Amino acid sequence: MAWSRLVRFVPKSGSTPLLGEPVDPAQDVGLATYKGEEVKVAVYSGSSVLSPGEKTGQVEVVERLLSPLAQEEVGTIRCIGLNYTKHAQEAGMALPTVPVLFLKPATALADPYPAPTVIQKAFVKDDAADYEAELAVVIGKKAKDVSEEDALSYVLGYTSSNDVSSRVAQLSQSQWCYGKGQDGACPIGPTIVSAATVGDYTKLRMRGLKNGQVVQDTGLDDLIFSVPKIISFLSQGTTLLPGTLILTGTPSGIGWAMSPKGVFKDGDEFAVEVTPHIGTLINKVEFGK
Amino acid sequence: MAWSRLVRFVPKSGSTPLLGEPVDPAQDVGLATYKGEEVKVAVYSGSSVLSPGEKTGQVEVVERLLSPLAQEEVGTIRCIGLNYTKHAQEAGMALPTVPVLFLKPATALADPYPAPTVIQKAFVKDDAADYEAELAVVIGKKAKDVSEEDALSYVLGYTSSNDVSSRVAQLSQSQWCYGKGQDGACPIGPTIVSAATVGDYTKLRMRGLKNGQVVQDTGLDDLIFSVPKIISFLSQGTTLLPGTLILTGTPSGIGWAMSPKGVFKDGDEFAVEVTPHIGTLINKVEFGK
Repeated sequence: MAWSRLVRFVPKSGSTPLLGEPVDPAQDVGLATYKGEEVKVAVYSGSSVLSPGEKTGQVEVVERLLSPLAQEEVGTIRCIGLNYTKHAQEAGMALPTVPVLFLKPATALADPYPAPTVIQKAFVKDDAADYEAELAVVIGKKAKDVSEEDALSYVLGYTSSNDVSSRVAQLSQSQWCYGKGQDGACPIGPTIVSAATVGDYTKLRMRGLKNGQVVQDTGLDDLIFSVPKIISFLSQGTTLLPGTLILTGTPSGIGWAMSPKGVFKDGDEFAVEVTPHIGTLINKVEFGK
Repeated sequence: MAWSRLVRFVPKSGSTPLLGEPVDPAQDVGLATYKGEEVKVAVYSGSSVLSPGEKTGQVEVVERLLSPLAQEEVGTIRCIGLNYTKHAQEAGMALPTVPVLFLKPATALADPYPAPTVIQKAFVKDDAADYEAELAVVIGKKAKDVSEEDALSYVLGYTSSNDVSSRVAQLSQSQWCYGKGQDGACPIGPTIVSAATVGDYTKLRMRGLKNGQVVQDTGLDDLIFSVPKIISFLSQGTTLLPGTLILTGTPSGIGWAMSPKGVFKDGDEFAVEVTPHIGTLINKVEFGK
C-alpha cells in the first residue's frame, strides 16, 4: 500500500533513525513534538523516503524528529526567489519574468524542533537574520527536459521549509547563495506528504508564525510561477536527481521588510505551517557563539 | 609516499575506473590523450583522490580520462565570479568588495576529452554558450570558520576547470546559477596536483585556448580575492566537506565580451591549460539535439 505521509525520526527505543507513517493521520506531528505530546509512528522497513519499503507492523514513539530527507539525499537544494507578487514588492525588486534560481548546499539542511535554527557566529554581528516560510517540493524520479504538462508526475511529495536568510550578506553584491547557504539555513519537515495525498497543491495554505504571531499567510495558488512551471524550467538541460528539494519562494511578511526590521533575536521561535496534512515546522533560533 | 598528481581514468584493460599517478611526471596527460599518445599510469589501490591508498605496482594505459573527482564526491560546486579586474570590466560589472559566490550542482561535473562539452538543447537557440577558464581548488578536509592564515592547509590540490556559461540565461534576471548549472557545464581535469607539489599557487599560469588560439592568459597572482581569502570567506558558518570544488573565477577574454561575440559553435574546441603540472583540460563542443 502506498504511503500517505512519512516522518524520519529517532525513536524513544533506540538511536537508529527510522522511517514511518504517523498512526494518527490528523496529528500535526511538528506541533505535537513541540508540546511534548506523544507521536506514534507505524514503522516502514526502509530508511529513506526514496525507498520506504513496507510497513513492518512495528509501532514506535518519536524521541526526535529528523528532516524527512537526509543531507546525503538532497544533493544541491534549489530555491526560487521572488515568487509572490507582494513579496517582490516588499523586497523592492522588479517582478521576475522567469523563475529566479539560487542554490543552497546540502549542508544547509536541518531538522525540526528540538533542533535549533543556528545563526552562525560570523553573521550574528550583522543583526540581519530572517525567516522565509516556503512550500518545498521533493522530486521522486530523475527529471530532465520535462514539460510543464508532465512536471507534476515527477513530484514525490511536499514538505515545509524555512529559507533562513542573512540579509546583509544576501544583499551585499546580490549574494543570495552566500547569504542563505550556511549550515542549518534550510530546516524542512515535519513530514513529507505524498503528491497523491496532497492532490491539488494550489489548495494548500501556508502560514509563517514568529513567536506565535502570524507574519506570513498565503494560499499556494498565489505563486507567480507554478510548481509545474518551476520543475520544467529547472529541468531544462539539467538532471534533477531523486531527492532534489525545490523551495518555491516565500510570501510577503519577511522581517527585513518591516519597520522597524523584525530580524531574529536569540531565542525567537519560527513556525512554518502548511495545511492540510504537512503540519508545522518549528525551530528555535540560537545565536552561534 | 605522498602522491604528487593523480588521474582518474578508465584503463585500456577494462571498464572499472582506476586512480593513479602518471608515470612520466612531465607529461601533459590531457594533451597526450587528445593527440592519441599513450599515457601510462602507476595505479593506486584506492578509487578516490580523497582516499587514494598506495601504489599497487601495477601500471595501466589510459583508455579515457575522467574528472579527478566523481559527481558523488564534489557535493555542491562553489564558484567565484568577477575575480579578475579586467574580466569585471569586460563584463561591465563593478569590482566586488567581497568574493561573489554562485553555485553549480554536482550534475554539472564533466570529464576531459573525449567527453564533449554539451550545450544543452534548451540553450542552443540562445546562441550564447561561452567558456571561462578557471583554476579549481579541491578541499581535502572539513573546513568551517577557517582563518585566511590557516586556509591553505585545507587544500588537497588544484585542477583546471571550464565554467561553461549560457550568457542569455545567465544575464536575464541575474541568473548565474541557472545559466551555469546545466549537465556538463563544469568539466575539470585532467589531473589533480597536490598542494605540496604546486607550492605557491600564485606562480601558476593559466591560458584558455579556443580552437588553438589563446583567448585568455593570466598569472594566478592576478586574482582580486586570493585562494586563502576565498576559502576563509566561504567557510564562514558553512561546512566545506572534503571534495568540495571551488572555481576561483575567470580572467578577461570571454567570448561574450568580444566584438562580434565569440560564442561557441558546434564542434569548437576549448582548452584550459594550467602550468606547470596540471596540464590541459580539453573538450569539444557538441550542440544538444
